[in-house]
Amino acid sequence: MGQSLLIKNAAQVVTMAGHSEQPAKRDEMQELSIIENGSVLMQDGQIKAVGKLAELEQQYQEIIAGAETIDATGKTVTPGLIDPHTHLVHAGTRENEYAMRLKGQSYMEIMNAGGGIHATTRATREADFDQLYDESKQRLDTFFQYGVTTVESKSGYGLSLGQELKQLEVAVKLNQYHAMDIVSTFMGAHAVPIDERDNPEPFVRRVIDEMIPEVARRKLAKFNDVFCERGVFTPDQSRRILEAGREYGLVPKIHADEIEPYGGAELAAEVSAISADHLLKASDEGIRKMAENDVMGVLLPGTAFFLMAEFADARKMIDGGVPVALSTDANPGSSPTLSLQFIMNLGCLKMGMTPEEVLAATTINAAHAIDCADHIGSLEAGKQADIVIFDIPNYLMLSYQYGMNHVDTVVKRGEPVVGK
Amino acid sequence: MGQSLLIKNAAQVVTMAGHSEQPAKRDEMQELSIIENGSVLMQDGQIKAVGKLAELEQQYQEIIAGAETIDATGKTVTPGLIDPHTHLVHAGTRENEYAMRLKGQSYMEIMNAGGGIHATTRATREADFDQLYDESKQRLDTFFQYGVTTVESKSGYGLSLGQELKQLEVAVKLNQYHAMDIVSTFMGAHAVPIDERDNPEPFVRRVIDEMIPEVARRKLAKFNDVFCERGVFTPDQSRRILEAGREYGLVPKIHADEIEPYGGAELAAEVSAISADHLLKASDEGIRKMAENDVMGVLLPGTAFFLMAEFADARKMIDGGVPVALSTDANPGSSPTLSLQFIMNLGCLKMGMTPEEVLAATTINAAHAIDCADHIGSLEAGKQADIVIFDIPNYLMLSYQYGMNHVDTVVKRGEPVVGK
Ligand SMILES: [Zn+2]
Ligand SMILES: [Zn+2]
Repeated sequence: MGQSLLIKNAAQVVTMAGHSEQPAKRDEMQELSIIENGSVLMQDGQIKAVGKLAELEQQYQEIIAGAETIDATGKTVTPGLIDPHTHLVHAGTRENEYAMRLKGQSYMEIMNAGGGIHATTRATREADFDQLYDESKQRLDTFFQYGVTTVESKSGYGLSLGQELKQLEVAVKLNQYHAMDIVSTFMGAHAVPIDERDNPEPFVRRVIDEMIPEVARRKLAKFNDVFCERGVFTPDQSRRILEAGREYGLVPKIHADEIEPYGGAELAAEVSAISADHLLKASDEGIRKMAENDVMGVLLPGTAFFLMAEFADARKMIDGGVPVALSTDANPGSSPTLSLQFIMNLGCLKMGMTPEEVLAATTINAAHAIDCADHIGSLEAGKQADIVIFDIPNYLMLSYQYGMNHVDTVVKRGEPVVGK
Repeated sequence: MGQSLLIKNAAQVVTMAGHSEQPAKRDEMQELSIIENGSVLMQDGQIKAVGKLAELEQQYQEIIAGAETIDATGKTVTPGLIDPHTHLVHAGTRENEYAMRLKGQSYMEIMNAGGGIHATTRATREADFDQLYDESKQRLDTFFQYGVTTVESKSGYGLSLGQELKQLEVAVKLNQYHAMDIVSTFMGAHAVPIDERDNPEPFVRRVIDEMIPEVARRKLAKFNDVFCERGVFTPDQSRRILEAGREYGLVPKIHADEIEPYGGAELAAEVSAISADHLLKASDEGIRKMAENDVMGVLLPGTAFFLMAEFADARKMIDGGVPVALSTDANPGSSPTLSLQFIMNLGCLKMGMTPEEVLAATTINAAHAIDCADHIGSLEAGKQADIVIFDIPNYLMLSYQYGMNHVDTVVKRGEPVVGK
């Protein structure tokens, strides 16, 4: 009999059960499947059972007798939060650009002047493997502190084969040595290298002909993402890049319609992307097509908050049948936060989502956005034991007491990794 | 020789020096007086010296030899944050109203239906002294965790002599037994009791004739505050209440122009209030008068964020010569946060303030807003040793890495009260 852990008598256990096959859509996003005064039993890193303590004691007397126990009286238990869109592996910070923006310069102006993505690209290229590893590891530690137990991580600050491989290999090594689970996305098409801006086609061909095959050969990524936006990659270039990735087994994702309506949501549906992300300016037609084709909308309201832009219309998407997930978009330029809890606050206060929907969007739907809902995203027997205990008496408090970190304890594969 | 503590070699020591006599105004709010690679020496709960380690070692060799030492390499040191406007002492939470608001009801609608302030008034009246003490104590612990070392605390959920005294006595006892410093404000005129809404005049007279004299006699408060807003107290009633308090030595404060322009800012200037708070709808004339009369504008952007309203025009006030402070307005209805760091984020991203201004607004100007700038609000020899060490390499990070808690260590009167 292996190592076992019992979290007992939580005021609420938010299980999110019943949506592992298909993402939660429309009213399904309101279904938290809460057990009041509930307990969770784990063994060998997996969830053994969820229910009332008396039931568990009856059925699993022997396991419970040998289990380590955490008393969660008065607290709220949820699945470990999942961040399905981060630019985790990069070097440096850009607080100086932030100060410039507060004095009136726009993000696109700063980027066109060689700042923005290009500044981080320079820093990331100059950083050696160990520096990138150490900086990213610190971010993972902080993600844990804020209740996140799985992150997606994109490359895209290298923009050459060798540099992209370096970023992806950092993520692979972190996944191996850090308790956090990391799901990797290749995003060579994150920006056109600054010296090729006038003629991006050769770069697009290198992404397609050199980078994608090699990334796939080395099994360094599960997804292939592209920044489809005017001045970055056109819908046509984006389509070619995503279809090329598909041939090598990389599932399409897309940064779509962030700055202006550009056909990104439509393209996501046409190439059967697993998700389209951002969508601040997505067209009604694009939203309709996403709903029809079950493309997850990954919304990143931190970016709108930090860039002082308008927010994506989450209400329209959910009501229109698009399954929605939320993410930090953690990156040094447009969203330098590591708090998915705060992103949930923005979901409620800035995008018209309910406290129930933001929980679905950061657990089971976030798991679907990275094709992991078979083993994470809900508290159900057989799933990986990734769990957060929040120091609040009910889940509404997560959104109500805003701007704060409510984490009490984080359990990763059945073992506490953060505890008060 | 008493107990001494040395914080050494911080990447930045933000001293805020030079504004203890008068609040920082206009460009003065940009002056952080930073010492790079700086150290702070404390003795007997007071700041002994601030400077480079080599200088301190030369001058205070003996004290340093006996001092406990905290290495702050790579971190940023600031004065303890000061929250000059809270409704600390109350019972209960109102997350259910929040969920109602997210479904479309307005704060004023909920209040007029007996929710809002009235719900908290009922809960606070029903709570005994110990319950109020325990709930408020927990909030103070959390304030410490987020870097706040002094809070102002208002009564105003009692609305009768006995119940207001109960709230104020809880604050006095907390000030005595908790390491936090608490500065008390009487706010009997926070709302008209729900059964006297049609005829508030008898209540106004009880505030003036019964409550203010007794609060003053018992020395339970330093300030006297009133909620001047249509449907609550008129400017005329507010003036009478504030002038009555003044006769008993209670310095006027005012909740002004939150929902509509109502002459609150003007009134603040006319009665020489130490501060006017909220000011979302303050008139240009009111702002001009506040500047002329050196009335501090205490801005509470958390309320606008949480109620999804427009923000106060901080830029206009600062440029117009009004000294500005920031506060959480911590309360269960319109701003249930205890993170003044997040309020700083809103100052930058939602009110056009600079990263420097938001620091002035939460340290030295916040100290002026509660008439405590003689002994707190900056790191200068002779002041109380209230200090925060943030785990960030420069002060810009405070606003840049938004939605997070950057506290590493909090020192209160020379002793660590929060430490990683
Ligand atoms: Zn992104
Ligand atoms: Zn208030």
